[in-house]
Amino acid sequence: MQRIANLLVVQDGQVLLLKKPRRNWYVAPGGKVEPEESIYDAAIREFTEETNAKPIQPHLKGIYTMVIEDGEVVKDEWMLFTFVANGLTGTPWEETREGLLEWHPIEHLESLPMAEGDRANLLFAVKESGTQYGTFHYTEEFQLLKQHLQSSSEGDVLNG
Amino acid sequence: MQRIANLLVVQDGQVLLLKKPRRNWYVAPGGKVEPEESIYDAAIREFTEETNAKPIQPHLKGIYTMVIEDGEVVKDEWMLFTFVANGLTGTPWEETREGLLEWHPIEHLESLPMAEGDRANLLFAVKESGTQYGTFHYTEEFQLLKQHLQSSSEGDVLNG
Repeated sequence: MQRIANLLVVQDGQVLLLKKPRRNWYVAPGGKVEPEESIYDAAIREFTEETNAKPIQPHLKGIYTMVIEDGEVVKDEWMLFTFVANGLTGTPWEETREGLLEWHPIEHLESLPMAEGDRANLLFAVKESGTQYGTFHYTEEFQLLKQHLQSSSEGDVLNG
Repeated sequence: MQRIANLLVVQDGQVLLLKKPRRNWYVAPGGKVEPEESIYDAAIREFTEETNAKPIQPHLKGIYTMVIEDGEVVKDEWMLFTFVANGLTGTPWEETREGLLEWHPIEHLESLPMAEGDRANLLFAVKESGTQYGTFHYTEEFQLLKQHLQSSSEGDVLNG
């Protein structure tokens, strides 16, 4: 099963997004987890490869199952691991092979064109505490059909 | 890629472990994540199926890549998602098709017979704050060859 790790850097009230030429949709920089690689290493490696900058204090915020459906038929399924980071070191490229890298105010996540599941994930990553889990069902044209989301926070187990 | 979700319940200073008949090794109750299922749902479902009890406040503590090697050859690779929960509702079975369910003081995690990677994961889950990531390399007889572990905690991104 394909596994994708992406990472949203927040710095000075802004987030670094990649504008992909297809559809002009925005995504958080990321890519495929390699065999034997931890998802943490993958998120940092992919972010650095795509931006030329290193994320500071990355932390996992969401683990999602993505399902692509054509009517009743499941065409594809993969996992997405979404990290957030508290700033970066280095200077991100402005343009890459993948698209344009742009800083946007956090609030723009509400309105920029993107997959609706990505919007939910990225808003959770920057605005909510804890970890989110869920499944997103999309058409092959990335229209969101349904979503099922849950979250949890570090409890008081450690004090038990 | 196979995905396994397991869950360690902590209650009154004790943890609920499954003693598997093969090797008499201890594990946290768990099992396979189903297609389209969130890992959170899978952890709760598998725990409940194996114990007859429901975990309270489950929270993801670790995401691991497990690699089985025979010399230079990778024989298998899967992912493990380890949750912790703050107690349970219901009365766990004492014996199941999978093995014996036993409560043990948290400190016994240091010494009970189990896969060494599991020991590291379960100790992190009950003793440390934050989320752990990593890769474990095992022989086909589950002898730990090497491990690579990292962790992160919720930072101050939300206050940025």
